[in-house]
Amino acid sequence: MDFQLVLDQINAELRPLLGQGGQVARYIPALARVSPAQFGIALRTCDGQTAQAGDSAVPFSIQSVSKVFSLTLAIQALGEALWARIGREPSGSPFNSLVQLETERGIPRNPFINAGAIAVADRLVTLGDGKAELLALLSRLCGEPIHIDAEVAQSEHDTGFRNTALANLMKGFGTLDNDVTTVLDVYFNQCAIRMTCEQLACAAGYLCRDGRHPLAGTPVLSPALARRVNALMLTCGTYDAAGEFAYRIGLPCKSGVGGGIVAVVPDHLTLCVWSPALDPTGNSLLGRQALELFVAKTGLSVF
Amino acid sequence: MDFQLVLDQINAELRPLLGQGGQVARYIPALARVSPAQFGIALRTCDGQTAQAGDSAVPFSIQSVSKVFSLTLAIQALGEALWARIGREPSGSPFNSLVQLETERGIPRNPFINAGAIAVADRLVTLGDGKAELLALLSRLCGEPIHIDAEVAQSEHDTGFRNTALANLMKGFGTLDNDVTTVLDVYFNQCAIRMTCEQLACAAGYLCRDGRHPLAGTPVLSPALARRVNALMLTCGTYDAAGEFAYRIGLPCKSGVGGGIVAVVPDHLTLCVWSPALDPTGNSLLGRQALELFVAKTGLSVF
Amino acid sequence: MDFQLVLDQINAELRPLLGQGGQVARYIPALARVSPAQFGIALRTCDGQTAQAGDSAVPFSIQSVSKVFSLTLAIQALGEALWARIGREPSGSPFNSLVQLETERGIPRNPFINAGAIAVADRLVTLGDGKAELLALLSRLCGEPIHIDAEVAQSEHDTGFRNTALANLMKGFGTLDNDVTTVLDVYFNQCAIRMTCEQLACAAGYLCRDGRHPLAGTPVLSPALARRVNALMLTCGTYDAAGEFAYRIGLPCKSGVGGGIVAVVPDHLTLCVWSPALDPTGNSLLGRQALELFVAKTGLSVF
Amino acid sequence: MDFQLVLDQINAELRPLLGQGGQVARYIPALARVSPAQFGIALRTCDGQTAQAGDSAVPFSIQSVSKVFSLTLAIQALGEALWARIGREPSGSPFNSLVQLETERGIPRNPFINAGAIAVADRLVTLGDGKAELLALLSRLCGEPIHIDAEVAQSEHDTGFRNTALANLMKGFGTLDNDVTTVLDVYFNQCAIRMTCEQLACAAGYLCRDGRHPLAGTPVLSPALARRVNALMLTCGTYDAAGEFAYRIGLPCKSGVGGGIVAVVPDHLTLCVWSPALDPTGNSLLGRQALELFVAKTGLSVF
Repeated sequence: MDFQLVLDQINAELRPLLGQGGQVARYIPALARVSPAQFGIALRTCDGQTAQAGDSAVPFSIQSVSKVFSLTLAIQALGEALWARIGREPSGSPFNSLVQLETERGIPRNPFINAGAIAVADRLVTLGDGKAELLALLSRLCGEPIHIDAEVAQSEHDTGFRNTALANLMKGFGTLDNDVTTVLDVYFNQCAIRMTCEQLACAAGYLCRDGRHPLAGTPVLSPALARRVNALMLTCGTYDAAGEFAYRIGLPCKSGVGGGIVAVVPDHLTLCVWSPALDPTGNSLLGRQALELFVAKTGLSVF
Repeated sequence: MDFQLVLDQINAELRPLLGQGGQVARYIPALARVSPAQFGIALRTCDGQTAQAGDSAVPFSIQSVSKVFSLTLAIQALGEALWARIGREPSGSPFNSLVQLETERGIPRNPFINAGAIAVADRLVTLGDGKAELLALLSRLCGEPIHIDAEVAQSEHDTGFRNTALANLMKGFGTLDNDVTTVLDVYFNQCAIRMTCEQLACAAGYLCRDGRHPLAGTPVLSPALARRVNALMLTCGTYDAAGEFAYRIGLPCKSGVGGGIVAVVPDHLTLCVWSPALDPTGNSLLGRQALELFVAKTGLSVF
Repeated sequence: MDFQLVLDQINAELRPLLGQGGQVARYIPALARVSPAQFGIALRTCDGQTAQAGDSAVPFSIQSVSKVFSLTLAIQALGEALWARIGREPSGSPFNSLVQLETERGIPRNPFINAGAIAVADRLVTLGDGKAELLALLSRLCGEPIHIDAEVAQSEHDTGFRNTALANLMKGFGTLDNDVTTVLDVYFNQCAIRMTCEQLACAAGYLCRDGRHPLAGTPVLSPALARRVNALMLTCGTYDAAGEFAYRIGLPCKSGVGGGIVAVVPDHLTLCVWSPALDPTGNSLLGRQALELFVAKTGLSVF
Repeated sequence: MDFQLVLDQINAELRPLLGQGGQVARYIPALARVSPAQFGIALRTCDGQTAQAGDSAVPFSIQSVSKVFSLTLAIQALGEALWARIGREPSGSPFNSLVQLETERGIPRNPFINAGAIAVADRLVTLGDGKAELLALLSRLCGEPIHIDAEVAQSEHDTGFRNTALANLMKGFGTLDNDVTTVLDVYFNQCAIRMTCEQLACAAGYLCRDGRHPLAGTPVLSPALARRVNALMLTCGTYDAAGEFAYRIGLPCKSGVGGGIVAVVPDHLTLCVWSPALDPTGNSLLGRQALELFVAKTGLSVF
């Protein structure tokens, strides 16, 4: 299939819609001032073919897309033991809800809601220097140095009252082993990582290749764990729109409020799309449309 | 692949565990007196190959598995308009919860929780004689006459206070168009349909064949809708264990408290497993283990 | 104190505000067509003095004010045993919420939310002909025959989906002993009783007189139980505005969506105010202002 | 009435029950090691009469009883403007619940749940040195210097994850104006104040005297505000047992997990009872029984 043609078509169809709907995330200044009139898309197939269109080389704040990689680090090290105090079920409520956390005695429903990702960050703190290891993993995966945007990290910290509430609530329930401040430092920094669509399409390449490094072919995760990360992305990766994504797109996806979405077609390719304006569920408005177009044009779907 | 061998192995491995765990559903006498020491499994591939083992020819109460077929009837007739007052998101709470329904103003989260299936039954009442059409669809799909267990239907009606509450709550919110009693009559009867693993593996065959009739090859659903039903099964088909099923099994599944589970491997086969003893999430204990063994032995998974 | 003067002043102050705010209850036609431009107030002291002003002799639908009298009948007969499956705590959520009922396993929080009053009606069904006994009690208490508005009762029945949901949910949890339909018949009829402010001020007179009949002086309730009914009215009698009523008015009150409010000044008097337009909490807008004026002018308050 | 005799009788009746039920609060060491075998009671009438029995001169950690005095300071200064972002309704859920806070967009239901008291502490920070002013108020009210137990304050801080979560959640919603750490410092310190029953019965004396200083007679609160604080105590002062306290005791009360309870008989007296073992609602087990005996023996009740 001529993927470059497909991405060019998608870019051509969606670019006229830029700036016509959705809202850039506004809770921190560095995100609020990103121009909404940007759209990028990139993919990398299992056999190393690449394609890209639009603003695919513009770096953006990956935000919650980082949760895929922190989960990968933690499950690499801990295996199924990671799930001792973290669930694997869709949350059925907005991604940052404390209600679920209190009702279920401090156990976050899955590793992709904020509470769950904070619990994963806690395990990374126990295992070593979470922040450095996450950057090292990402740099290895895409073969280029990856950095944190210090201004975004600071803003996340300064405005992260709700995440601080989640972390303290979990600490009170015994879900976190480490100091709340240290754990949140990892979490706020991982959200502030900057990458391009091309880098993310490469970095997440192990998810479509049974866990093998997208460039080197060496194991990042076991085949079983790689497929399980995909399963979690499909059921929990796009906030409270996971059912809708599964219904309309049918691929494991992980989105972030920076406007990025990583999608996986197992055994075929990994895709990354980015456009900063979000729909009311917190997912990239054009990113979602791009993924719908992609599956319509290619017929690729896990179902 | 020699599927008959795979099913024989699964049957041999699990049969010794019969009666060692789980609990038969007890809320109505006809279900409570089913012997837990039964296990059946059957599959049918896209190209018409069949395999079966254990109690695969014993009829059982399909209960919520019927929700796949009532959804199919409704979406056949209404297409995407079906979703006007029914959601497509995982529920994140026990399958019969009123909390979600009240919080979200009477819109059930998806068509596989009880409230959602009652709303689907309401649409079938609008469209015609829901009960008769459901039996006709099932009979056509498996080429044999399918019946309702009148005792079970009566018991469902006599003890269905919570479903009556759900239906009345939705009626109050305007989610149902028809009389509550008429709608519940369809719903209670569909839960009381009796089928065997072999019949269900055949009847649900359109879901792995892009919507085509498993025997005749004529369209039951469009390819897109068939894949979307699979997506709903994966995200919402197994009560509050959907994330766990996706994680460990990785196939679209729909379970019922009678102990049956239908699973779909898109483009490959449809599988039905049955064992009456349930785990705490309301899914068949051995059925779940059988599906885990099946994917481990065959490597089949959507991820 | 010259209570007639006080009521005349209140009537004079509030009458110009008639029709300027609030909304008549609209969920049934018979209530929706009541003119909002009505205001009545009446009181009766422990020593038999009466005062009244405005539309104090106009009959209106007492709605939830009836819950005081059904509770009185039930607690007369059952004493503290009434509380076996009914709570005594404020609900902290809208008066018709199913959430609380599900979370607390079918035990209504108090006898003045709808679920609790339906549970009280269930006990009246066990004890005899609830509907007839309630009318008999009210007729005895005010020395005049009291009737049910058949049109209102029928409308309550025809539109009572949420109350039917509450009753079925409780039946499923084992909170109700009798058939749901029979229990709801008592409940829908008690809501449809018609009385005037003067009749209600007299009928509820036992609550300010240590439980003694307002005319005959014979015991209706023991002094302890009469005071306890007052306590329940203060903490639970005005839907989710009970705290606000206690804070601003400081008297045990029970309101109804017909616009009536009964208030008790223990050891002094019982007061009834009526005006059909409701505030957003479902309490009579002018009724509430009238009670605030009354306590400001008289200095009467339990605090 | 011979109140000394009444208190002696209560002490004699309850002392044999010491150590036979309930649980001392265990969440911090300093509370966990308090001997449960203690019971004290003291009262002070409007006209200055005092009575006391048992361990009425033993200092204990007043914990949430302090919320009455912090509310008094804040409402003295701000009047009704205090209620801009704090509710006045019973909470209907456990006293430390985040669910309510999230559902109601960060507005605490009332000033006596933890979230509400933290919001009150925020206002004290805006007004000045909350900690010092609270100690000054208490010292003035009982004519003796009052102190904070530094060990308890430190423990409250070290284990206060849930309160930190509540404060951060409110900060995120804009309910707090000041820095979370500064606000929590006031809150954790106020919980750690130590007083005796005799001191508290005197200090809270303005609540039964229309707001006048119990010793000097000068105004602490206006009569209207004093009565309103009593109303809040009755509807919200004893966690999720407020309805039960109103029903059985019928007096405005405020309890703390240190085992103290302050009760007010408006226009008559203020009472303080203390016994460290708590019932499952977090209220002093014997304290509650003592109050029930007191109202039974004296006939005093607001209803």
